[in-house]
Amino acid sequence: MRELTVELGERSYPIYIGQGILNDITALFDRAKLSRKSPLLVVTDSEVAPLHLERVMALLRAGGFNATSCVVPAGETSKSLSQLEGIVTSALQAGLDRSSAIVALGGGVVGDLAGFAAASFMRGIRFVQIPTTILAHDSSVGGKVAVNHPMAKNIIGAFHQPELVLFDIDLLLTLPPRQVKAGLSEVIKHGLIWDAAFTQWCDDNTEKLLSLDPEALGYALYIGCKVKSIVVSQDERENDLRAILNLGHTIGHALEAVAGYGELLHGEAISIGMVGAAKLAQQFGYSEEIHEVTKGLFLKYGLPVSIPPHLDTDSIMSAMMHDKKFKEGTMVYIIPMEIGKVEIRKDVTVEQVRQIVELLKGRG
Amino acid sequence: MRELTVELGERSYPIYIGQGILNDITALFDRAKLSRKSPLLVVTDSEVAPLHLERVMALLRAGGFNATSCVVPAGETSKSLSQLEGIVTSALQAGLDRSSAIVALGGGVVGDLAGFAAASFMRGIRFVQIPTTILAHDSSVGGKVAVNHPMAKNIIGAFHQPELVLFDIDLLLTLPPRQVKAGLSEVIKHGLIWDAAFTQWCDDNTEKLLSLDPEALGYALYIGCKVKSIVVSQDERENDLRAILNLGHTIGHALEAVAGYGELLHGEAISIGMVGAAKLAQQFGYSEEIHEVTKGLFLKYGLPVSIPPHLDTDSIMSAMMHDKKFKEGTMVYIIPMEIGKVEIRKDVTVEQVRQIVELLKGRG
Repeated sequence: MRELTVELGERSYPIYIGQGILNDITALFDRAKLSRKSPLLVVTDSEVAPLHLERVMALLRAGGFNATSCVVPAGETSKSLSQLEGIVTSALQAGLDRSSAIVALGGGVVGDLAGFAAASFMRGIRFVQIPTTILAHDSSVGGKVAVNHPMAKNIIGAFHQPELVLFDIDLLLTLPPRQVKAGLSEVIKHGLIWDAAFTQWCDDNTEKLLSLDPEALGYALYIGCKVKSIVVSQDERENDLRAILNLGHTIGHALEAVAGYGELLHGEAISIGMVGAAKLAQQFGYSEEIHEVTKGLFLKYGLPVSIPPHLDTDSIMSAMMHDKKFKEGTMVYIIPMEIGKVEIRKDVTVEQVRQIVELLKGRG
Repeated sequence: MRELTVELGERSYPIYIGQGILNDITALFDRAKLSRKSPLLVVTDSEVAPLHLERVMALLRAGGFNATSCVVPAGETSKSLSQLEGIVTSALQAGLDRSSAIVALGGGVVGDLAGFAAASFMRGIRFVQIPTTILAHDSSVGGKVAVNHPMAKNIIGAFHQPELVLFDIDLLLTLPPRQVKAGLSEVIKHGLIWDAAFTQWCDDNTEKLLSLDPEALGYALYIGCKVKSIVVSQDERENDLRAILNLGHTIGHALEAVAGYGELLHGEAISIGMVGAAKLAQQFGYSEEIHEVTKGLFLKYGLPVSIPPHLDTDSIMSAMMHDKKFKEGTMVYIIPMEIGKVEIRKDVTVEQVRQIVELLKGRG
């Protein structure tokens, strides 16, 4: 089992990564001093429930925890205020109190939704993440939780740190190949923004990662979580540094919105976005190699590197204008300076981004 | 103009109280460094809008602020997730960004709803309170914001401190007498929990307060806000001391829920609750005088001191069981030890509270 700590003063918490560690769930809950007296609510979705819910509930109950569960429909549409209300109904029916915790068992959607429920129920109760996707290595670290509004993604939310993150590699072995690739996109991102050696390692170990080799996957998740936790520790509330985690996300989020959430997976959308940012880096005078390496890596992982041509450029640009990354009219953009290092630029014009979007359509 | 500071480290903020100080709104916004570049959203309700909205908007625009407004229906039912979604729609349409602020112009409902919108929009933007009721002297200080769930009041919310509170006495002069009395109930509460001299002052100045004498009202609001801010400064997130602010609220909230929100005003419900707590104090061996003074004071202010007999005891008790003040099955209760001093007891049994409820029905 690998272990690392997200350093946030009194809100610090551990991340455990390893194969089969779900068996240690009650010991890890005890280490986090979760209450056995107050009810726990396990929130999961309709795809994860048949695979893992029964076992999680059995382990918790065997360990003396008073656990209830709540299942939401799988998919991004569950990140809504109405599902939030449903979780609160379950929490009230189960008798959750201020010493209770909500456990998110699932991918990013479940983590974000259940996390916001924990952040807002009784103005904030404790929260545990048990990710079941590779992508969730990203969303489960850092405390950003949210639901969507029909007009904008992740626009209603909070910063609410979990008590612990329990990442059991075994829960990832049933992931469909498309989800595996899309999840690895964020893993690769953590190399691109922070760690050139890890980027090289990702290049050298593509086959192992795509075939879910437990040792390779455990290492990649460890490094991904570690990079993210270092960044988050230095800037919990995204005042500055944390923005670098958004590499590829400006275009990526717009593509997800325009394609309709679900047509392009998040990891797919940001792989296109990261290729776009690398292209922009070239225009700002940085080495062409950044674009070559970035694009080559995503191609090797079978991830998309160009925008589906049927997506309208005006719609993509308009979706971007609603994005949270615009501050007082100025566009904030994350640009790679070299592999493993990015900068936060505030001088990127809408016109420059439009050109990149055009470039990515067909000729990315 | 009276001024006081709620001391909360980097989240400290000023409260301004005075007659006609709305005219200084842009100077006070400048002092809080609110942005003129980023749009402001003023949230108010359908009762306050015809009285004050036009003037507030005109003052803000004349001062160079980019202000938009959003009006919700008056009444407790607006403290809902669907109204929250509506405010977020307005915020997105107005182009609010991370440097924007939401301004709550209204009573407790508007403050709680708009405050939770500010707490969760983009994971938290800035927030200003302009209370238009006496009761809001309480809700506008301390950063507790929330919406209701069909099964429980204030159950979905956050701690989110405002940048400033602007309390213009002139906005209170149109309040209907029932609202005045109900608002003064929380003012009196602040005396009962913290300040015996102020309790005596309230007894001596009943006529002045009920007739909205500006000098008396300004002083009472100042003391009320001051007591609340001292308590909040010492315990922002209600781990211990802050619970004393809930004097009268355990029974009060249950009465509001059972009577249907609106039949009993909040201030009316807690005046009954405070008489109940004083009765309980007697049973715990404290002086009978507490009950006499408490009841006498509320009678003098024309506030109810007994439970309407048609409200069912079982329903009241069941509503209480859903309340947030139950921690791990134990009942937490605020009991006066003398006038101006209360204690937090954790040993109050459900049976003792039921007896008090029965006593308050007809023989309070």
